[in-house]
Amino acid sequence: MKLRTYKKELGYSYALGASPVIELLQNRPDDCFKVIFDPSYPDKNGKIANLCEKYNIPREEDRKFIGMLSPKENCYAAAVFYKRGRQIGANKSHVVLDNPADMGNLGTIMRSCAGFGISDIAIIGGGADVFNPKVIRASMGAFFCVNAQYFDSIGDYLGFCGDNRDIYTFMLGGNYNLAGLPVDKSKIYSLVFGNEAAGLDYETYKNTGKSVVIGHTDKIDSLSLPTAVGVALFWFAK
Amino acid sequence: MKLRTYKKELGYSYALGASPVIELLQNRPDDCFKVIFDPSYPDKNGKIANLCEKYNIPREEDRKFIGMLSPKENCYAAAVFYKRGRQIGANKSHVVLDNPADMGNLGTIMRSCAGFGISDIAIIGGGADVFNPKVIRASMGAFFCVNAQYFDSIGDYLGFCGDNRDIYTFMLGGNYNLAGLPVDKSKIYSLVFGNEAAGLDYETYKNTGKSVVIGHTDKIDSLSLPTAVGVALFWFAK
Repeated sequence: MKLRTYKKELGYSYALGASPVIELLQNRPDDCFKVIFDPSYPDKNGKIANLCEKYNIPREEDRKFIGMLSPKENCYAAAVFYKRGRQIGANKSHVVLDNPADMGNLGTIMRSCAGFGISDIAIIGGGADVFNPKVIRASMGAFFCVNAQYFDSIGDYLGFCGDNRDIYTFMLGGNYNLAGLPVDKSKIYSLVFGNEAAGLDYETYKNTGKSVVIGHTDKIDSLSLPTAVGVALFWFAK
Repeated sequence: MKLRTYKKELGYSYALGASPVIELLQNRPDDCFKVIFDPSYPDKNGKIANLCEKYNIPREEDRKFIGMLSPKENCYAAAVFYKRGRQIGANKSHVVLDNPADMGNLGTIMRSCAGFGISDIAIIGGGADVFNPKVIRASMGAFFCVNAQYFDSIGDYLGFCGDNRDIYTFMLGGNYNLAGLPVDKSKIYSLVFGNEAAGLDYETYKNTGKSVVIGHTDKIDSLSLPTAVGVALFWFAK
């Protein structure tokens, strides 16, 4: 099979950089089918090579193709993996993102989710492609510790996971302030966030769960999406 | 004066995009000396024009120069402003960043600071240029609501602002967990963070203030810098 640079339609994607490659090999070795080194990679017989030996994954050197995969940043190691097995658990707590637009933000949110103990992310109505190498890179490899599943609508999502959970919709006009919000540790929960530009649509979400605001000054219109998600995850994890 | 594209050495910089331009004109009109429109900007007689009239700031149309200022993203309005007046207050609470590397992160941190009521940022030992238009853009205009001052070392910073404040150094091995940390609202404080790659150097900071950790799982090496700052600001503002 001749490998091509990433496109959404492909059945495989790339982990770019030593750290994401190691996370892939440690967390989802069965998905990985090749590791590519730049010939100048200094640690060709190190941790990555050991993991490749352990899981019987072929390695090759290809400076030109690595350069094509990562034209803007220096990258000395890459791994190719099949896109599969990303279904979330219906009985887990979730972060729910409605139409997230920015790939860097999505990766940063994955990193925060993994850091605060959330392994399942639901994405409503499309948005950024979770498998894009830019997402994986921004996640610093946390992509390989989380699941992410797309749903056409919040209704589809609730049909999938049921309502035996606490649902919190984060919006500027929310009824409850996050600071002080009691967290029932015996319940699973969904933390729902809108996209970077528009936030959650009030009409769509007004009858879903409790609306929550992260209070801020009038100097800004809103917090950045990854900051809002990070603050909420911290509050629920603490 | 013939304007040039941004370089650190220049005495002026640019706000790119309608929202940062408006923040500049509302918060620091005396610093602004010109507004430039792309001829296709749809609101040439709107809010920006009104602010220019109010503060007697000249406007001009220049498609080519706007394209040079923002080659990657469409940008229809830009403003030129003098770099000045960014000293922090010695008697204010501060966010302190040691050698922050990423301009997008620095802008996002400014946005969080403005949102959580911190107007003063100290930067230790260099790092990203706060006046770079990429920082201003990432701040969504919050740049114009905050001050940022460089110090050669943490010693110089403490010499400037004294130690009549609570100082918290955020590091992975911190002695106190942020969740549960008591906040004395009667004291001013400094929240100190290391750079994206290395964090705070233990030897340099071990005798400075209280060390604090934002607890996270072992799935990640650390939270992203803007997420860590956002979570800490939230905790201190709540």
